[in-house]
Amino acid sequence: MPKALFITFEGGEGVGKTTNIEYFKALMEERKLEFIATREPGGTPLAEEIRSLLLAPRDESVCSNAELLLMFAARAQHLASVIEPSLSQGVNVLCDRFTDATYAYQGYGRELGTEAISILENLVHGERQPDLTVVLDAPVEVGMARARDRGALDRFEQEDLAFFNRVREGYLKRAAENPGRYEIIDASLSLGDVKAQIYDVFQRRVVGSLGS
Amino acid sequence: MPKALFITFEGGEGVGKTTNIEYFKALMEERKLEFIATREPGGTPLAEEIRSLLLAPRDESVCSNAELLLMFAARAQHLASVIEPSLSQGVNVLCDRFTDATYAYQGYGRELGTEAISILENLVHGERQPDLTVVLDAPVEVGMARARDRGALDRFEQEDLAFFNRVREGYLKRAAENPGRYEIIDASLSLGDVKAQIYDVFQRRVVGSLGS
Repeated sequence: MPKALFITFEGGEGVGKTTNIEYFKALMEERKLEFIATREPGGTPLAEEIRSLLLAPRDESVCSNAELLLMFAARAQHLASVIEPSLSQGVNVLCDRFTDATYAYQGYGRELGTEAISILENLVHGERQPDLTVVLDAPVEVGMARARDRGALDRFEQEDLAFFNRVREGYLKRAAENPGRYEIIDASLSLGDVKAQIYDVFQRRVVGSLGS
Repeated sequence: MPKALFITFEGGEGVGKTTNIEYFKALMEERKLEFIATREPGGTPLAEEIRSLLLAPRDESVCSNAELLLMFAARAQHLASVIEPSLSQGVNVLCDRFTDATYAYQGYGRELGTEAISILENLVHGERQPDLTVVLDAPVEVGMARARDRGALDRFEQEDLAFFNRVREGYLKRAAENPGRYEIIDASLSLGDVKAQIYDVFQRRVVGSLGS
Protein backbone atom coordinates (compact mmCIF):
# COMPACT_ATOMS: atom_id res chain seq x y z
CA MET A 1 0.00 0.00 0.00
CA PRO A 2 1.48 3.42 -0.93
CA LYS A 3 2.19 5.83 1.89
CA ALA A 4 -0.66 8.32 2.28
CA LEU A 5 0.10 11.99 2.82
CA PHE A 6 -1.31 14.25 5.51
CA ILE A 7 -1.50 17.70 3.89
CA THR A 8 -2.69 20.81 5.73
CA PHE A 9 -3.65 24.24 4.39
CA GLU A 10 -3.07 27.33 6.46
CA GLY A 11 -3.37 31.09 6.19
CA GLY A 12 -5.10 34.17 7.55
CA GLU A 13 -8.43 35.64 6.53
CA GLY A 14 -9.21 36.21 2.84
CA VAL A 15 -6.11 34.48 1.45
CA GLY A 16 -8.23 32.21 -0.77
CA LYS A 17 -7.83 29.05 1.24
CA THR A 18 -11.18 27.56 0.19
CA THR A 19 -10.67 28.27 -3.52
CA ASN A 20 -7.18 26.84 -3.51
CA ILE A 21 -8.12 23.72 -1.56
CA GLU A 22 -10.77 23.11 -4.24
CA TYR A 23 -8.08 23.44 -6.88
CA PHE A 24 -5.80 21.07 -4.98
CA LYS A 25 -8.65 18.54 -4.74
CA ALA A 26 -9.18 18.79 -8.51
CA LEU A 27 -5.49 18.03 -9.05
CA MET A 28 -5.72 15.00 -6.75
CA GLU A 29 -8.77 13.76 -8.65
CA GLU A 30 -7.09 14.22 -12.04
CA ARG A 31 -4.25 12.00 -10.84
CA LYS A 32 -6.77 9.53 -9.36
CA LEU A 33 -5.19 9.88 -5.93
CA GLU A 34 -7.55 8.77 -3.19
CA PHE A 35 -8.18 11.42 -0.53
CA ILE A 36 -10.59 12.87 1.97
CA ALA A 37 -10.98 16.61 2.52
CA THR A 38 -11.70 17.77 6.04
CA ARG A 39 -11.29 20.85 8.21
CA GLU A 40 -10.44 22.10 11.69
CA PRO A 41 -11.85 22.82 14.09
CA GLY A 42 -14.38 20.19 13.01
CA GLY A 43 -14.41 17.13 10.80
CA THR A 44 -16.57 14.91 13.04
CA PRO A 45 -20.05 15.58 14.50
CA LEU A 46 -18.64 16.25 18.01
CA ALA A 47 -15.76 18.33 16.66
CA GLU A 48 -18.19 20.38 14.56
CA GLU A 49 -20.23 21.04 17.71
CA ILE A 50 -17.06 22.23 19.42
CA ARG A 51 -16.36 24.43 16.38
CA SER A 52 -19.79 26.03 16.80
CA LEU A 53 -19.03 26.76 20.48
CA LEU A 54 -15.73 28.38 19.46
CA LEU A 55 -17.04 30.51 16.63
CA ALA A 56 -20.31 31.71 18.19
CA PRO A 57 -20.25 35.38 19.17
CA ARG A 58 -21.03 35.44 22.92
CA ASP A 59 -21.33 37.90 25.81
CA GLU A 60 -19.13 35.75 28.04
CA SER A 61 -15.44 36.48 27.58
CA VAL A 62 -13.78 33.14 26.72
CA CYS A 63 -10.49 32.66 28.58
CA SER A 64 -7.49 31.76 26.47
CA ASN A 65 -6.93 28.38 28.07
CA ALA A 66 -10.55 27.38 27.47
CA GLU A 67 -10.26 28.32 23.81
CA LEU A 68 -7.03 26.36 23.48
CA LEU A 69 -8.40 23.27 25.20
CA LEU A 70 -11.54 23.29 23.05
CA MET A 71 -9.39 23.48 19.92
CA PHE A 72 -7.37 20.47 21.00
CA ALA A 73 -10.47 18.55 22.12
CA ALA A 74 -11.87 18.90 18.60
CA ARG A 75 -8.46 17.96 17.19
CA ALA A 76 -8.12 14.83 19.35
CA GLN A 77 -11.51 13.62 18.17
CA HIS A 78 -10.74 14.48 14.54
CA LEU A 79 -7.45 12.59 14.67
CA ALA A 80 -8.95 9.53 16.34
CA SER A 81 -12.03 9.17 14.18
CA VAL A 82 -11.02 10.63 10.80
CA ILE A 83 -7.35 11.44 10.17
CA GLU A 84 -5.58 8.38 11.63
CA PRO A 85 -8.04 5.81 10.22
CA SER A 86 -7.77 7.39 6.74
CA LEU A 87 -3.98 7.51 6.71
CA SER A 88 -3.71 3.96 7.98
CA GLN A 89 -5.91 2.83 5.07
CA GLY A 90 -3.66 4.60 2.56
CA VAL A 91 -6.10 7.46 1.97
CA ASN A 92 -4.51 10.91 1.71
CA VAL A 93 -5.92 13.58 4.03
CA LEU A 94 -6.32 17.23 2.96
CA CYS A 95 -7.10 19.32 6.02
CA ASP A 96 -8.18 22.97 6.12
CA ARG A 97 -6.15 24.19 9.15
CA PHE A 98 -4.42 22.11 11.84
CA THR A 99 -2.12 22.76 14.81
CA ASP A 100 -0.17 25.45 12.94
CA ALA A 101 -3.39 27.50 13.08
CA THR A 102 -3.47 27.14 16.86
CA TYR A 103 0.10 28.39 17.11
CA ALA A 104 -0.64 31.27 14.71
CA TYR A 105 -4.02 32.36 16.12
CA GLN A 106 -3.82 31.54 19.82
CA GLY A 107 -0.05 31.49 20.33
CA TYR A 108 0.92 34.52 18.27
CA GLY A 109 -2.40 36.29 17.53
CA ARG A 110 -3.76 36.16 21.09
CA GLU A 111 -0.22 36.23 22.48
CA LEU A 112 -0.77 33.15 24.66
CA GLY A 113 2.77 32.07 23.89
CA THR A 114 3.66 28.67 22.52
CA GLU A 115 4.43 26.72 25.69
CA ALA A 116 0.89 25.59 26.48
CA ILE A 117 0.22 24.81 22.82
CA SER A 118 3.36 22.74 22.63
CA ILE A 119 2.31 20.77 25.72
CA LEU A 120 -1.11 20.07 24.20
CA GLU A 121 0.37 19.23 20.80
CA ASN A 122 2.60 16.61 22.45
CA LEU A 123 -0.33 15.22 24.39
CA VAL A 124 -2.69 14.99 21.41
CA HIS A 125 -0.46 14.21 18.42
CA GLY A 126 3.20 14.16 19.38
CA GLU A 127 3.97 11.46 16.83
CA ARG A 128 1.74 12.67 14.02
CA GLN A 129 2.70 15.76 12.05
CA PRO A 130 1.57 16.89 8.57
CA ASP A 131 3.78 15.69 5.72
CA LEU A 132 3.18 18.98 3.91
CA THR A 133 1.73 22.29 5.06
CA VAL A 134 0.70 24.79 2.38
CA VAL A 135 0.67 28.33 3.80
CA LEU A 136 -1.30 30.86 1.75
CA ASP A 137 0.34 34.14 2.60
CA ALA A 138 -0.76 37.71 1.84
CA PRO A 139 -0.45 41.10 3.52
CA VAL A 140 -3.19 41.41 6.14
CA GLU A 141 -4.84 44.43 4.47
CA VAL A 142 -5.32 42.44 1.26
CA GLY A 143 -6.86 39.47 3.07
CA MET A 144 -9.13 41.56 5.30
CA ALA A 145 -10.54 43.50 2.33
CA ARG A 146 -11.37 40.21 0.59
CA ALA A 147 -12.95 38.77 3.76
CA ARG A 148 -15.12 41.87 4.22
CA ASP A 149 -16.37 41.57 0.63
CA ARG A 150 -17.48 38.01 1.47
CA GLY A 151 -20.05 39.14 4.06
CA ALA A 152 -20.57 38.94 7.83
CA LEU A 153 -17.51 38.59 10.06
CA ASP A 154 -17.42 35.93 12.77
CA ARG A 155 -15.84 36.41 16.21
CA PHE A 156 -12.28 35.84 14.97
CA GLU A 157 -12.71 38.14 12.00
CA GLN A 158 -13.77 41.01 14.23
CA GLU A 159 -10.27 41.12 15.73
CA ASP A 160 -8.07 44.00 14.73
CA LEU A 161 -5.31 44.36 12.19
CA ALA A 162 -2.52 44.00 14.75
CA PHE A 163 -3.92 40.60 15.71
CA PHE A 164 -3.88 39.39 12.12
CA ASN A 165 -0.39 40.72 11.57
CA ARG A 166 0.74 38.63 14.53
CA VAL A 167 -1.06 35.60 13.05
CA ARG A 168 0.72 36.08 9.73
CA GLU A 169 4.11 36.48 11.42
CA GLY A 170 3.41 33.32 13.42
CA TYR A 171 2.87 31.27 10.28
CA LEU A 172 5.98 32.66 8.61
CA LYS A 173 8.09 32.09 11.71
CA ARG A 174 7.02 28.45 11.98
CA ALA A 175 7.62 27.89 8.27
CA ALA A 176 11.09 29.43 8.53
CA GLU A 177 11.94 27.13 11.46
CA ASN A 178 10.93 23.99 9.57
CA PRO A 179 11.23 24.67 5.83
CA GLY A 180 11.08 20.98 4.95
CA ARG A 181 7.43 20.75 5.92
CA TYR A 182 6.07 24.08 4.68
CA GLU A 183 5.45 25.58 1.26
CA ILE A 184 4.66 29.30 1.25
CA ILE A 185 2.33 30.48 -1.51
CA ASP A 186 2.23 34.20 -2.36
CA ALA A 187 -1.56 34.66 -2.20
CA SER A 188 -1.49 38.37 -2.95
CA LEU A 189 -1.05 37.62 -6.67
CA SER A 190 -3.84 36.98 -9.17
CA LEU A 191 -5.77 33.72 -8.86
CA GLY A 192 -4.01 32.39 -11.97
CA ASP A 193 -0.59 33.05 -10.48
CA VAL A 194 -1.60 31.51 -7.16
CA LYS A 195 -2.85 28.40 -8.94
CA ALA A 196 0.44 28.12 -10.81
CA GLN A 197 2.29 28.03 -7.47
CA ILE A 198 -0.13 25.44 -6.09
CA TYR A 199 0.34 23.31 -9.19
CA ASP A 200 4.10 23.43 -8.74
CA VAL A 201 3.79 22.35 -5.09
CA PHE A 202 1.44 19.54 -6.08
CA GLN A 203 3.87 18.24 -8.70
CA ARG A 204 6.92 18.37 -6.44
CA ARG A 205 5.45 17.33 -3.12
CA VAL A 206 2.56 15.02 -4.00
CA VAL A 207 3.29 13.50 -7.40
CA GLY A 208 7.00 13.45 -6.54
CA SER A 209 6.28 11.59 -3.32
CA LEU A 210 3.38 9.28 -4.22
CA GLY A 211 3.91 8.84 -7.95
CA SER A 212 1.01 8.98 -10.41
CA MET B 1 -10.66 40.40 54.42
CA PRO B 2 -10.97 36.81 55.77
CA LYS B 3 -9.53 34.02 53.66
CA ALA B 4 -12.23 32.37 51.58
CA LEU B 5 -12.31 28.59 51.24
CA PHE B 6 -12.55 26.58 48.04
CA ILE B 7 -14.50 23.45 48.99
CA THR B 8 -15.25 20.63 46.57
CA PHE B 9 -17.66 17.69 46.86
CA GLU B 10 -16.90 14.39 45.20
CA GLY B 11 -18.27 10.89 44.94
CA GLY B 12 -19.71 8.30 42.60
CA GLU B 13 -23.30 7.85 41.48
CA GLY B 14 -26.07 7.79 44.07
CA VAL B 15 -23.95 8.72 47.10
CA GLY B 16 -26.25 11.66 47.98
CA LYS B 17 -23.98 14.43 46.78
CA THR B 18 -26.81 16.85 45.93
CA THR B 19 -28.63 16.33 49.24
CA ASN B 20 -25.49 16.75 51.28
CA ILE B 21 -24.33 19.85 49.41
CA GLU B 22 -27.75 21.36 50.22
CA TYR B 23 -27.16 20.55 53.87
CA PHE B 24 -23.68 22.06 53.76
CA LYS B 25 -25.13 25.23 52.20
CA ALA B 26 -27.68 25.44 55.02
CA LEU B 27 -24.86 25.21 57.56
CA MET B 28 -22.97 28.01 55.77
CA GLU B 29 -26.12 30.17 55.76
CA GLU B 30 -26.77 29.56 59.47
CA ARG B 31 -23.26 30.84 60.23
CA LYS B 32 -23.80 33.76 57.80
CA LEU B 33 -20.75 32.71 55.80
CA GLU B 34 -20.84 34.19 52.31
CA PHE B 35 -20.55 31.60 49.52
CA ILE B 36 -21.47 30.65 46.00
CA ALA B 37 -22.46 27.12 45.02
CA THR B 38 -21.41 25.92 41.60
CA ARG B 39 -20.71 22.68 39.77
CA GLU B 40 -18.46 20.95 37.25
CA PRO B 41 -18.45 20.47 34.41
CA GLY B 42 -20.34 23.76 34.13
CA GLY B 43 -20.76 26.88 36.21
CA THR B 44 -20.67 29.41 33.33
CA PRO B 45 -22.78 29.57 30.14
CA LEU B 46 -19.91 28.27 27.95
CA ALA B 47 -18.92 25.61 30.49
CA GLU B 48 -22.54 24.45 30.72
CA GLU B 49 -22.61 24.13 26.92
CA ILE B 50 -19.47 21.99 27.16
CA ARG B 51 -21.19 19.94 29.89
CA SER B 52 -24.09 19.28 27.50
CA LEU B 53 -21.65 18.08 24.82
CA LEU B 54 -20.03 15.73 27.35
CA LEU B 55 -23.20 14.25 28.79
CA ALA B 56 -25.25 13.86 25.60
CA PRO B 57 -25.63 10.24 24.52
CA ARG B 58 -24.20 10.07 20.98
CA ASP B 59 -23.51 7.56 18.22
CA GLU B 60 -19.95 8.86 17.75
CA SER B 61 -17.49 7.21 20.11
CA VAL B 62 -15.76 10.03 22.01
CA CYS B 63 -12.01 9.47 22.31
CA SER B 64 -10.55 9.71 25.80
CA ASN B 65 -8.32 12.69 25.04
CA ALA B 66 -11.25 14.67 23.63
CA GLU B 67 -13.29 13.98 26.75
CA LEU B 68 -10.40 15.02 28.96
CA LEU B 69 -9.71 18.21 27.04
CA LEU B 70 -13.39 19.19 27.08
CA MET B 71 -13.46 18.71 30.85
CA PHE B 72 -10.46 20.96 31.32
CA ALA B 73 -11.78 23.55 28.85
CA ALA B 74 -14.92 23.88 30.96
CA ARG B 75 -12.75 23.99 34.09
CA ALA B 76 -10.46 26.73 32.75
CA GLN B 77 -13.48 28.89 31.96
CA HIS B 78 -15.09 28.14 35.31
CA LEU B 79 -11.92 29.07 37.19
CA ALA B 80 -11.37 32.29 35.23
CA SER B 81 -14.89 33.63 35.37
CA VAL B 82 -16.34 32.23 38.61
CA ILE B 83 -14.02 30.52 41.08
CA GLU B 84 -11.00 32.86 41.11
CA PRO B 85 -13.03 36.10 41.14
CA SER B 86 -15.15 34.79 44.04
CA LEU B 87 -12.21 33.67 46.14
CA SER B 88 -10.35 36.92 45.54
CA GLN B 89 -13.40 38.81 46.85
CA GLY B 90 -13.47 36.71 50.01
CA VAL B 91 -16.48 34.65 48.92
CA ASN B 92 -16.29 30.93 49.74
CA VAL B 93 -16.83 28.56 46.81
CA LEU B 94 -18.70 25.26 47.15
CA CYS B 95 -18.18 23.19 44.01
CA ASP B 96 -19.95 19.98 43.04
CA ARG B 97 -17.01 18.03 41.52
CA PHE B 98 -13.62 19.34 40.42
CA THR B 99 -10.33 17.87 39.17
CA ASP B 100 -10.54 14.91 41.56
CA ALA B 101 -13.54 13.80 39.50
CA THR B 102 -11.44 13.86 36.34
CA TYR B 103 -8.80 11.68 38.01
CA ALA B 104 -11.47 9.32 39.34
CA TYR B 105 -13.67 9.05 36.22
CA GLN B 106 -11.25 9.49 33.32
CA GLY B 107 -7.98 8.51 34.98
CA TYR B 108 -9.15 5.50 36.96
CA GLY B 109 -12.66 4.76 35.58
CA ARG B 110 -11.73 4.97 31.89
CA GLU B 111 -8.19 3.85 32.69
CA LEU B 112 -6.59 6.77 30.83
CA GLY B 113 -3.95 6.90 33.54
CA THR B 114 -3.09 10.02 35.46
CA GLU B 115 -0.21 11.45 33.41
CA ALA B 116 -2.27 13.42 30.88
CA ILE B 117 -4.60 14.63 33.63
CA SER B 118 -1.68 15.80 35.69
CA ILE B 119 -0.27 17.73 32.70
CA LEU B 120 -3.63 19.43 32.14
CA GLU B 121 -4.12 20.11 35.84
CA ASN B 122 -0.75 21.90 35.93
CA LEU B 123 -1.62 23.87 32.82
CA VAL B 124 -5.06 24.96 34.01
CA HIS B 125 -4.73 25.34 37.78
CA GLY B 126 -1.30 24.36 39.00
CA GLU B 127 -1.40 26.93 41.77
CA ARG B 128 -5.02 26.60 42.77
CA GLN B 129 -6.18 23.53 44.70
CA PRO B 130 -9.26 23.02 46.86
CA ASP B 131 -8.78 23.80 50.55
CA LEU B 132 -11.12 20.95 51.44
CA THR B 133 -12.52 18.06 49.42
CA VAL B 134 -15.48 16.15 50.87
CA VAL B 135 -15.66 12.65 49.39
CA LEU B 136 -19.02 10.92 49.79
CA ASP B 137 -18.14 7.25 49.71
CA ALA B 138 -20.37 4.20 49.44
CA PRO B 139 -20.08 0.72 47.92
CA VAL B 140 -20.91 0.94 44.21
CA GLU B 141 -23.91 -1.40 44.45
CA VAL B 142 -25.54 0.89 47.03
CA GLY B 143 -24.99 4.02 44.93
CA MET B 144 -26.11 2.46 41.64
CA ALA B 145 -29.36 1.20 43.16
CA ARG B 146 -30.12 4.71 44.43
CA ALA B 147 -29.23 6.29 41.05
CA ARG B 148 -31.53 3.87 39.23
CA ASP B 149 -34.40 4.78 41.54
CA ARG B 150 -33.89 8.42 40.52
CA GLY B 151 -34.80 7.82 36.86
CA ALA B 152 -33.07 7.90 33.47
CA LEU B 153 -29.34 7.19 33.30
CA ASP B 154 -27.02 9.50 31.32
CA ARG B 155 -24.01 8.33 29.32
CA PHE B 156 -21.77 7.99 32.38
CA GLU B 157 -24.38 6.16 34.36
CA GLN B 158 -24.71 3.50 31.67
CA GLU B 159 -21.15 2.38 32.36
CA ASP B 160 -20.70 -0.92 34.13
CA LEU B 161 -20.03 -1.80 37.74
CA ALA B 162 -16.30 -2.40 37.20
CA PHE B 163 -16.00 1.16 35.91
CA PHE B 164 -17.62 2.59 39.03
CA ASN B 165 -15.51 0.42 41.28
CA ARG B 166 -12.42 1.90 39.63
CA VAL B 167 -13.86 5.39 40.13
CA ARG B 168 -14.41 4.73 43.81
CA GLU B 169 -10.90 3.31 44.25
CA GLY B 170 -9.52 6.37 42.47
CA TYR B 171 -11.14 8.73 44.96
CA LEU B 172 -9.97 6.69 47.94
CA LYS B 173 -6.42 6.43 46.56
CA ARG B 174 -6.15 10.17 46.06
CA ALA B 175 -7.57 10.85 49.51
CA ALA B 176 -5.09 8.44 51.08
CA GLU B 177 -2.19 10.19 49.32
CA ASN B 178 -3.19 13.63 50.57
CA PRO B 179 -5.19 13.19 53.80
CA GLY B 180 -4.83 16.86 54.74
CA ARG B 181 -7.13 17.97 51.97
CA TYR B 182 -9.76 15.22 51.99
CA GLU B 183 -12.55 14.22 54.34
CA ILE B 184 -14.16 10.85 53.62
CA ILE B 185 -17.83 10.56 54.53
CA ASP B 186 -19.39 7.10 54.86
CA ALA B 187 -22.39 7.66 52.60
CA SER B 188 -23.75 4.13 52.96
CA LEU B 189 -25.25 5.04 56.36
CA SER B 190 -28.69 6.59 56.97
CA LEU B 191 -29.17 10.21 55.92
CA GLY B 192 -29.13 11.28 59.57
CA ASP B 193 -25.79 9.59 60.17
CA VAL B 194 -24.33 11.08 56.99
CA LYS B 195 -25.47 14.55 58.05
CA ALA B 196 -23.82 14.10 61.43
CA GLN B 197 -20.50 13.42 59.68
CA ILE B 198 -20.98 16.45 57.39
CA TYR B 199 -21.74 18.61 60.44
CA ASP B 200 -18.56 17.47 62.10
CA VAL B 201 -16.47 18.27 58.98
CA PHE B 202 -18.13 21.67 58.75
CA GLN B 203 -17.30 22.49 62.37
CA ARG B 204 -13.69 21.37 62.16
CA ARG B 205 -12.74 22.51 58.69
CA VAL B 206 -14.89 25.57 58.02
CA VAL B 207 -15.78 27.10 61.38
CA GLY B 208 -12.37 26.10 62.71
CA SER B 209 -10.67 27.83 59.78
CA LEU B 210 -12.86 30.88 59.13
CA GLY B 211 -14.36 31.45 62.59
CA SER B 212 -18.04 32.28 63.00
